[in-house]
Amino acid sequence: MDALEALMTTRAMRRFTTDDVSDEMVATCLRAAQQAPSGGNVQALQYVVVRAPEVKAAVAAAYLAAWDRYERVLGAPPSFRTPDDEASWRRTKAASDHLAHHLDDVPIIVLFLLPVIPWTPSDDEGPIDIGPLYASAYPAVQNFCVAARALGLGTTVTTVIRCETEAVRDAVGFPEGWEIVALVPVGRPSGRFGLARRKPVEALTHWDRWGQKRR
Amino acid sequence: MDALEALMTTRAMRRFTTDDVSDEMVATCLRAAQQAPSGGNVQALQYVVVRAPEVKAAVAAAYLAAWDRYERVLGAPPSFRTPDDEASWRRTKAASDHLAHHLDDVPIIVLFLLPVIPWTPSDDEGPIDIGPLYASAYPAVQNFCVAARALGLGTTVTTVIRCETEAVRDAVGFPEGWEIVALVPVGRPSGRFGLARRKPVEALTHWDRWGQKRR
Repeated sequence: MDALEALMTTRAMRRFTTDDVSDEMVATCLRAAQQAPSGGNVQALQYVVVRAPEVKAAVAAAYLAAWDRYERVLGAPPSFRTPDDEASWRRTKAASDHLAHHLDDVPIIVLFLLPVIPWTPSDDEGPIDIGPLYASAYPAVQNFCVAARALGLGTTVTTVIRCETEAVRDAVGFPEGWEIVALVPVGRPSGRFGLARRKPVEALTHWDRWGQKRR
Repeated sequence: MDALEALMTTRAMRRFTTDDVSDEMVATCLRAAQQAPSGGNVQALQYVVVRAPEVKAAVAAAYLAAWDRYERVLGAPPSFRTPDDEASWRRTKAASDHLAHHLDDVPIIVLFLLPVIPWTPSDDEGPIDIGPLYASAYPAVQNFCVAARALGLGTTVTTVIRCETEAVRDAVGFPEGWEIVALVPVGRPSGRFGLARRKPVEALTHWDRWGQKRR
């Protein structure tokens, strides 16, 4: 499929059919993830593909606990600019809630893990901020999701599982000193791919100077 | 162009021709960036497109200062596993050095900016780690770069400019309370697109349990 179309229509999918996803399709998406940029070409990111029912059940239980904790403090934003904004927010929340209660039924869960490593050099003037190691993680997550979309697979990037990291560590057996940067469910989506609702990019783009519109 | 091919062959480009890049091509890449996932659909990321010679010169000078500071502490990694690894590292360093000294000649520089906003809710048990806001920034940077590649444009994701943030703030006029998450040069690449050198993804992938290979 066309590259620009894939980029534009990779939207969060939170409802899936129970159709299976082959290991080979997951491997294709991981190869795309691995080609994403990595600071200093360190390539610190690693991947866990969860398919086995007992492991998936434990990860799904941890995800539901994380979601429940987050949802309790989430509430609604104090005000919505338009009724459409509120409707959109409610749809997303319902879909996120659905995912949290049905993650166990999704064919594949992929965990993206980073080692917690020293990443800030310093000199006589002090630390040199060369950017967060996350800059070498989330591009790979996005490559994974766009590759999946090109194969007709739905995904969504989630991070709330971080507040239940220890339960996932127990389920999967990853060592101390690693953090979960994303949990991505993968399956055949129930809904259709398409443009996600976004602010117009023109309103967020500055040309040459902050606040300056395109000539 | 094909989506998987674009994902696989978006490699860092650090040498560019002086051919112009149209605003419309940049806008196409920004639209792709804007469709990347955003936690809670907050869409906090904003973009500055630098084309004006005097602004570009100031940003390029800040970049060179940042690179010089970083390069002085970089040195060589203590050892290389193979001569190929060392050669690859030296090529990348030479290209990065070239970019730092010629950023002024690149047609377009795009800055990706995030507001520094409170992002961690908490409850009676303490803070709830819902993931870094960077999870809603670097997917957009990657979408931008893959869209550019589909248009035949080269890019590279850089973050070292962060240690010269104040100079860039002066040049571009962005307000306090915003951080630079990436600086991406955009131009027609001198070199060819292709597979970047990466570790085999199989060596970094765990199936169901940490350390377990594919069945």
